[in-house]
Parts: sequence; structure tokens; C-alpha cells
Amino acid sequence: MNTRRGITRELARYATASRYAALPDSVRAEAVRAFVNWLGCALGGCNEPSVKVAAAMVARLGGAPQASIIGHTQRTDVASAAMVNCISSTCQAFDDAHLPTVTHPSSPAGGALFALCETQTVSGEDFLNALALPIEIECRLSNALVQAPSQFNPGVYVTGLSGPFGVALGVGNLLKLNEEQMVTAIVLAASQASGFRATNGTMSAHFRPGHAARCGVWAALLAQEGYTSDDDLLEVKHGFFDVLGPRANLDLVVDGLGQHFELFLNAYKPYPCGIVIHPALDACLDIRQQVSPELKPVSATLRVHPFALTLCDLRTPVTLLESHVSLYHWVAAALVRGRAGLAEAQLDCIHDPQVAALRARIEAVPDETLGREQAIAEVSFSDGKTIRSHILNVRGSLARPMTDDELDAKFRAQASGVLPSAKVETLLRLCRGVASLPDVGKEIADAMAL
Amino acid sequence: MNTRRGITRELARYATASRYAALPDSVRAEAVRAFVNWLGCALGGCNEPSVKVAAAMVARLGGAPQASIIGHTQRTDVASAAMVNCISSTCQAFDDAHLPTVTHPSSPAGGALFALCETQTVSGEDFLNALALPIEIECRLSNALVQAPSQFNPGVYVTGLSGPFGVALGVGNLLKLNEEQMVTAIVLAASQASGFRATNGTMSAHFRPGHAARCGVWAALLAQEGYTSDDDLLEVKHGFFDVLGPRANLDLVVDGLGQHFELFLNAYKPYPCGIVIHPALDACLDIRQQVSPELKPVSATLRVHPFALTLCDLRTPVTLLESHVSLYHWVAAALVRGRAGLAEAQLDCIHDPQVAALRARIEAVPDETLGREQAIAEVSFSDGKTIRSHILNVRGSLARPMTDDELDAKFRAQASGVLPSAKVETLLRLCRGVASLPDVGKEIADAMAL
Repeated sequence: MNTRRGITRELARYATASRYAALPDSVRAEAVRAFVNWLGCALGGCNEPSVKVAAAMVARLGGAPQASIIGHTQRTDVASAAMVNCISSTCQAFDDAHLPTVTHPSSPAGGALFALCETQTVSGEDFLNALALPIEIECRLSNALVQAPSQFNPGVYVTGLSGPFGVALGVGNLLKLNEEQMVTAIVLAASQASGFRATNGTMSAHFRPGHAARCGVWAALLAQEGYTSDDDLLEVKHGFFDVLGPRANLDLVVDGLGQHFELFLNAYKPYPCGIVIHPALDACLDIRQQVSPELKPVSATLRVHPFALTLCDLRTPVTLLESHVSLYHWVAAALVRGRAGLAEAQLDCIHDPQVAALRARIEAVPDETLGREQAIAEVSFSDGKTIRSHILNVRGSLARPMTDDELDAKFRAQASGVLPSAKVETLLRLCRGVASLPDVGKEIADAMAL
Repeated sequence: MNTRRGITRELARYATASRYAALPDSVRAEAVRAFVNWLGCALGGCNEPSVKVAAAMVARLGGAPQASIIGHTQRTDVASAAMVNCISSTCQAFDDAHLPTVTHPSSPAGGALFALCETQTVSGEDFLNALALPIEIECRLSNALVQAPSQFNPGVYVTGLSGPFGVALGVGNLLKLNEEQMVTAIVLAASQASGFRATNGTMSAHFRPGHAARCGVWAALLAQEGYTSDDDLLEVKHGFFDVLGPRANLDLVVDGLGQHFELFLNAYKPYPCGIVIHPALDACLDIRQQVSPELKPVSATLRVHPFALTLCDLRTPVTLLESHVSLYHWVAAALVRGRAGLAEAQLDCIHDPQVAALRARIEAVPDETLGREQAIAEVSFSDGKTIRSHILNVRGSLARPMTDDELDAKFRAQASGVLPSAKVETLLRLCRGVASLPDVGKEIADAMAL
């Protein structure tokens, strides 16, 4: 670890002072896009089993009806709503991802902040500022954890470490915590950082970001109620980075705060699966479009960034959730069906004999020379031909971001499973114009009411 | 990590099948002692600031009034009561400790299980079994984490890792989870494991075990409501031990379950401070008793097990909470006042000029040849004499455990701050006879009612 001191307090000071007026237009616009993407994902996932079980669980504890459970008539306390709505937004693996670290910043932040907005009047400007803040800090914290010289264990679930922080800062900003309270919110958030990669592909994986959202709310509320702490947990011996990212470069957390924005490296997914799968998937969709629909894919060789195999080297998914982290499944499905949407995450596609057979005939090779946004695919077809595609910038990457229209189309597809189309359009208009709303929680929640 | 497979499932199977009838008498008796010590600590700590703030916080979320907050008239949901009552039992640093690992098994377990007993009828026998179970498993898990060949980072707060597990198993046992549900409860508990040593000596430190208690309750309830998981998170790559205790000997978790009981290495504290301080403290109390009260201590040299300095090398405590982890404070206070009780953790003793002056003239030397239960002290007095004491087995150690009478006296001192003496005696009788109670939650809570 480098010897930089005081970053816990620096973060607290920044979060306490953070205001919409100081944000560049480009950051404001990106926060709107993050919100549209987040709310669409929450609507898209709100009827998944992980959400229903979590909603039943919080009903059992009987929290006060302070905030909505999105897509349901049930209401619950703000911390529980943060958790359940975060699970909704993440359980279809369609939420945003910070490309250098694969942290998912908006799911915990969106879940927590939207719930808080239902407990107090928050303007659209304040909301967007409070959303941009955790996205920014979660990405920065993840950079320091994941990137060299940090000795980060890839078994750690990075959103579980960064999520509580971001949520605590964003909620703390809206609660108008003072600097000392914000320090404690950070310490209590750090004290709850947890989660392992190994649960990927199961319902239990969805609990991790939901837990992060809830923990961040708790941290901010406990700090407001009077908990206290030291002011150096991030950087001190036996503290957060010492344990979870030894030797981390702490400058990555705080250098250029308010000037350089890591949030521009946060991307929205075109495909509902692990983001490290996307480049190979793009390559195969590209190849599929080049050949006649009658031709059958016979085998494929993929060259991918090594991290794609660290996270998604699952040959044979059995459940819908395992498909989210199976590189082989998505490539096979794309080559067989020519599509990679929510339908390709369903059991009928996972168990489709043609898809399953192709999965077994895909070779994936890690290639250190490729960037994370790159992949090379070579696919052989039933006519004996082999077609190659080299993706330099995957769809959804920084060089080729999802357009506003693509994000709107994604939102409509997700929301239409829950709301009639007229309501979807009203809601989308409200989200696009969120900056001008006087009371985000009330107006958006009313527009989503079932 | 060794290659032992299947320990997640082995633990689930053991916890599901665990019954009072199978427990040896000695384990039953130790569970009663653990309960008496736990409830006394919860009563002793129930008016500390950490508890009041946590109670205000849970009131804000409005959970259903399912369980008591000990020492208060407020009621809250079972998960929140688990948290707050755990904080009460731990915030005076007077709770039990597993000597080889300094995990504090009963605080999270007692908090959670007592709260659960207020939501359903639980017999004394079932309660004692459900309490012995987490104590046992938390100690075993901690052994594997902390002991060689595990590459455990001492910055990790071990109760934060072991606590959620134990609670999930104990609560799961009382909820009669089946084996698959218990597997998921373990996975969800592991997914919430968290906390750092660096918060020691602040209010935020108390939150860690409270959080562990709440997380364990959540894990068991979510599993009962229908969450699912894989069955190998403890032992798999990118899982719990791979990240937090690389190379750990997993045999320590499961070998001899039901035959060999680690709970016998769980000890009760005679002094309200970090247990690693106790041997040197015992030595100084011993020396103080050998000299005339008029003689003033001038300086001291301590030889201690190195771990005492890893955890408690704090020369100058400023707050009451910092005193809990200051070896120098307790030794100085004992030499000046001849006592080491709750009064010596108060600010008037911390700021006593005589105590403060002596703290600066104490040298502590790590000595690898000493056991954790051992220390050597040499104290010079105002008459020029130096007296030496060599403690081979500290009071509260396995060779010299707290007697039942000593535990009862500790309970009375703690409870008398909250309850009139007649109620204290009734309550103590109920606790001592807990095995014969038909409904633990109701009978004990009624006896504690304010």
C-alpha cells in the first residue's frame, strides 16, 4: 500500500460538499442515462424469484411502509426497499458495469437512493448529484482494489466492497450528513463490505449487491443517529485496503476528484449476461449476420481477454442464472439464434439441443494481447467455410457506447413486462427529464404505480 | 488450502440434525454458563451509547414488535433485536472469547437466538442446543481461519467472519430448516462476512458483531423463504476460505463434529477488556496484593505473548472504548487502584493523573516463549523494591476457569444496573435452570420486563 494518508476524510469531505451545480453537463447527462438504465433493469427484473423471495422476507420483518418495492404494491422500510429494488435491477445481469473493474455501481446506488427519495422530498437535481457521486466513488474504489499494484484476490466480489461505500456517500449526501458523520458512514460501510465471486450463477449472487445497498443505507442512518468512529479505516493498518487490496495505489481513489470522472467508464449492457462475455458475443453476432440463416454453425474458436475466462468459464449452464456467466452459452445461442436478448437466458434456449451441442464445440483461448473490449472469433459453418470477426470495440464500450435511443429501447422492452405501454412512455419521459422534477420519489413512484 | 471437499454440506447436515439429546452433559452445562455470561453482559451493556443509537436507528425503520430490546421497553423485529442485543452484550468488552482465536462466539449467537425465541415457542433444551451449536461452529471456523497453515490477515475481525455462520446455523436449527435450506443459510451467511480489526476501540467496533448477528438471522430467514445456492462456497475456488484463509486446514472445521467440542476452549472474562490483556493484568493484580497499599508503583516491565501487542498495543487511550484495547491502561489502573472492573474502564480512571503517568513508564516486550494465557510482570515501587509475578494460567483460562460462583457474581454486578435485586435473583435462577423452561423467550423476557 502506498503511504497516502487521509483518504477516508478526503472522501467524506468530497461527499459532504458534492452539489449538482458543480457537475459538468456531461456528468449530469451520464447520470440521467445511468438512472434510465437502472430503473429499466429494476422493472425488468422485478418478478424474478430472487426478488419475490426477498420481498417475502422483508414482509416478515414488518418494516414501516416507507418506500415502494418496484413493480409490486408492497411497501417496506427504506433499507429493505433499497435491498429488494437493487436485487430487481441486478438479477437479470443487465445492469451497468465499470469496464476496467466490472464493478456494478448503479444497482446498489439506484436501489438505495430511489428508496430514500420516497422518504423525503428530493429534487431531480439533488437526486442526479447523489447518484453520480456513488457511481464515481464506487468506480474509483474498485480501480484501487483491482488494479496493480493491489494484491486483490479475484474471488472477492468487487461490487460487494464498493457498493456499501457508494450508497453510504450518496444517502449521506441527501441526508445532509456533516463531515464527521460522513466519516463514520464510510467506516460503517467499509465494515460491511463482503461477498465472493464463487456464488456467481446462483440466486445467492443477487443477494450480494442487495446486501450492499442495505448496508450502505444502514451506515448512513447509523452515522446520522450518532455512531462515531476513527477517520482512517480505508488507509490504516488492519483496515480496508490493508486487508482487501494490499499495496493498492490509494491515489486512484481520490486524485482529481471533481475534475476527472471515472463514471464515463461506466457502461450499459446491450446483452443480459456478464459483460466480459460481450466482445466474443458481438463477434459471433457479427459473423452470424454475414452468413445465410440456413447455414448451421459447427464449431468456434474464440480469443478473449483472460478476465473473460476468470469470470465466465462455465461450459454447461444448467439454470437460467448460470447462463449469465457462461461465455459458451451466449456465443452458442447467438450463433444458433442470431440474437442475444432476455429470451436467450431462458431455459428453453439453455436446453435447446442445437445450442447445447454447439457449446461443447467452442474453444476459448485467453489472449493477453487483447483489450477487455476486444475479442476474435472464428466460426466454422456447415458448408465448410470459416468466418472470422475481430471486435476492436464491443458494443456498449467507451468507443461505441449505447446510444440514448438504444437505452430507451432497452427500457421499453424491460418496462413493458410490468406496465402498459402508455405508462411506460410517461415514465420514460419523466426519467429523461428527471433533472427538472421537484420531487423525484413521489413523481416517479406515482408513474410506476400498478 | 487442503483439498477437502464437501464441508459446506457437512456443516449443513450437522446443524440440521443437531439435538439436545445428543449433547454430553458437560456441553449442556457449558451452554448454560455461556448463556448466563451472555445475558449478564447484555444487561450490563444495555445503556451504553452504541446500544441507544442502534435502538434509535431500528426504531426509525419501524420493524414489527417481535422481540425485546434488552433493558428497554422498545420492541423491534427479530433481526434488529438480534443486532441491538448483541451490541449490548459486547460493547463493554466483557463477553466470552475462544482462547485460541479470540473469536467472541456467544454475542452474535445469544443476540439472535434469544430474539428468535420471542417469536416462537422454544424449550430450554432446544435453546441450549441451538446456542451450543453456533459457539462450536464459530470456534471451529475461527480455528481454520486463524491457525497455520492459513494465510489469515490479522486485520480481519474474526467474529465478523464466524458470527454470521454460527447465527445462521443456530437460527436455522430452531426454524427446522432442511439440509438444502441450511446449505443456503451458510452460503448467505458467508456472503455477509465482514469487518476489520482497525475499528477496535471505537463505537463502530460494536457494530461489527451486531451486524454479524443480524446477517445470520437474515441468512436463515432468506433460506427458509426460498433463496437457493450452490453447496460449496466454503471450500471452492473464489469462495470463503480461498479468499479469507488461503491454505486453511479445513479439517479443523468438521473433524470430530459431535465428538470433540471446541466450546470447552471458550472462556468468560473476569476483566472488561481485551482478553489478550488479562495475563499481564493478573500478574499486576497479584503483585499489587503483595505490597502495602501505601507504596506507589513507579514503573513496570511486562513480558507478554506477541498477540497481546498485535491487538492491544495502545499506549494512551482517550476514550472509554479505547481503554478496552489498551494493555498499558489496564496494567497501570490495576497497579494504582488494585482493581480491574467496570469502574476502571471509566473516564475518571483513564484520565487519573497517577494512572496516566504510570502508563508512560510501562514497557511491554513480546515473548514467543510464553503461551497466550501467560505473562511475566516486574514492577518497581516507591520504596525501591521490584516485585515479579509469573502467571502460568490466567484467571478465566482453561486451567483456571471462572467458577459458577464467579460467573453469578459477574451477572449480579451487571444486571443490578438495570433491575432491582429481587428481579436479578429471579432472573439468575431462571437462567441457571434454563434447561427445564418450556418457553425460554417468554419466561426470560417476562422476568426482565422493566
